[in-house]
Amino acid sequence: MEDNKVIFSGMRPTGRLHLGNYLGALQNWVGLQDEYSCIYAAVDVHALTTITSGDEVHEIRPNIREMLIDWLAAGLDPQRSILFVQSHVPEVLTLSALLSMVTPLGWLMRVPTFKDRVRQMSETEDSVSYGLVGYPVLQTADIILYKATAVPVGEDQVPHLELAREIVRRFNNTFGDTFPEPQVKLTEVPSIVGLDGQHKMSKSLDNHIELASDPEETSKRVLTAFTDPQRMRRTDPGRPSVCNVYSLHKVFDPANLDAIYEECTTATRGCVDCKRQLADGINDYLAEMRERRRELEERPDYVTEVLLDGAKRAKVIAKATIDEVTEKMGLGIPPLN
Amino acid sequence: MEDNKVIFSGMRPTGRLHLGNYLGALQNWVGLQDEYSCIYAAVDVHALTTITSGDEVHEIRPNIREMLIDWLAAGLDPQRSILFVQSHVPEVLTLSALLSMVTPLGWLMRVPTFKDRVRQMSETEDSVSYGLVGYPVLQTADIILYKATAVPVGEDQVPHLELAREIVRRFNNTFGDTFPEPQVKLTEVPSIVGLDGQHKMSKSLDNHIELASDPEETSKRVLTAFTDPQRMRRTDPGRPSVCNVYSLHKVFDPANLDAIYEECTTATRGCVDCKRQLADGINDYLAEMRERRRELEERPDYVTEVLLDGAKRAKVIAKATIDEVTEKMGLGIPPLN
Repeated sequence: MEDNKVIFSGMRPTGRLHLGNYLGALQNWVGLQDEYSCIYAAVDVHALTTITSGDEVHEIRPNIREMLIDWLAAGLDPQRSILFVQSHVPEVLTLSALLSMVTPLGWLMRVPTFKDRVRQMSETEDSVSYGLVGYPVLQTADIILYKATAVPVGEDQVPHLELAREIVRRFNNTFGDTFPEPQVKLTEVPSIVGLDGQHKMSKSLDNHIELASDPEETSKRVLTAFTDPQRMRRTDPGRPSVCNVYSLHKVFDPANLDAIYEECTTATRGCVDCKRQLADGINDYLAEMRERRRELEERPDYVTEVLLDGAKRAKVIAKATIDEVTEKMGLGIPPLN
Repeated sequence: MEDNKVIFSGMRPTGRLHLGNYLGALQNWVGLQDEYSCIYAAVDVHALTTITSGDEVHEIRPNIREMLIDWLAAGLDPQRSILFVQSHVPEVLTLSALLSMVTPLGWLMRVPTFKDRVRQMSETEDSVSYGLVGYPVLQTADIILYKATAVPVGEDQVPHLELAREIVRRFNNTFGDTFPEPQVKLTEVPSIVGLDGQHKMSKSLDNHIELASDPEETSKRVLTAFTDPQRMRRTDPGRPSVCNVYSLHKVFDPANLDAIYEECTTATRGCVDCKRQLADGINDYLAEMRERRRELEERPDYVTEVLLDGAKRAKVIAKATIDEVTEKMGLGIPPLN
């Protein structure tokens, strides 16, 4: 393990994870444990930035639990890594409030994803919550509360991390050297397209395959996958380059890729058979994970223990940082004259 | 004491208080103790919203201490009231972050004092800190963390409290009834004009008289006070209606007001004598307070104890509120299945 190399990353508690979440992030998180001290959070406060009704919050706790089971089943190791729930360490909100004093409003309004989010929520810049605007400040606090030195991010998250680095620089310049500038650890992942063959795999579009679903359900869903839309008849040759099923074979059956290509383009393989083979590949790939999941589902106390232990360990680091920050910012107990 | 009537108010730690602070707020705070449970905070985090350099923060702690001595000397009673430092109860930052999820950005940008502050700081709406924009959210959290039912405010603070009430309504509507809507307790105070006869008494304009200064210093400063600018010669009659010294006599020598008026308008009293009399009045008025201040200055441990005890008592209330809020917002420990 590299000295002083601390990785932080967080995931919104959306419930059971799907293949896109796994291949896009979780698989990478598991691997990073071999090289770094890793701190992974279920960021439940972030989930609040986009809720539109009070009812939605009742899903947060069960979603954390389901997500944690997937984390553990996929190989996140609570002995080596700190796995915890963001709100269990409210020091992050203290730090976020303090960082907000050195973060110009304009920096936040110019974050590229901010305008997208405003549009997605059918809001205006005036009607979105102050909390949503401050999302990148809270994200910065998440990272630097633990003095993380690197953050695994996809291309689309690079501007957020650049903003985090700017906030860190401004804080260090104003109050003295305190935080390392977190480095981008770019995650090269294939963007996993959903079963509709068009959009990124996502739960809200219902074009996803849950890690937790059983082999039958998985096969049923894979059979609904869109393939090359120009291949109307079984005898038409297919075009793997535009077929999402083919691109999923790259992940789940890389050894047979050449054969699949050949059979598709010569119409010696039909789409239904091709999808059955993909479903088998996915089911094989996930079999062990699913077995671990079943075991974990029967040990709810263990999941709770993991989270409480993670929070305890995270809190030790968090408290030390907050003590240092409040000291540098002149807050806290006034010393005796 | 009225049942369930809780007063909250806060003051920025600007150091030694002056007559304007006393007559405009502190005197009223002292009186409220007879009727209400009072919680008074030195709001050091608010002080951070307008700092422009890291050096300024070194003044915060000594300023808290000086202000506390004035509070105690003026008659705030730590046995009856909770006196504490805002940052000692970081739960307020947790609550503020959570309230920010139900506070539209537009509400904050439209606060009348926001645009004034932006102008005062020679900033633009783009360059001011995110923390400054959120000032009213933190102020709301200050109040409702203790479920205060009323807040003593001057006319100029009424819009802030109206915003606090709107945030409370939105929170209660979204997550269920949690907070009382804090009521305005309007403080009718004469606006105390400074020695320049023009602006509100303020430390930054150096037109003030510190509660803590000694009688000689007080007399010296009062002698610099501007009076009626048209009274050029001793023999000219004065116009009490435009004379700030006269308006201060209203506070410090109300019994002799008629005589002062008569003597001024008939030029039987000169401005210098008039100011000497005012200085004596002020010194008499503050004598007891200054005596208590001297005693307190010799007991720095006592001041610390007051603050630590206040923080402890405030924290008990704060924790109960945060538990209730995180429960209603679906955060915290996920329950076992």
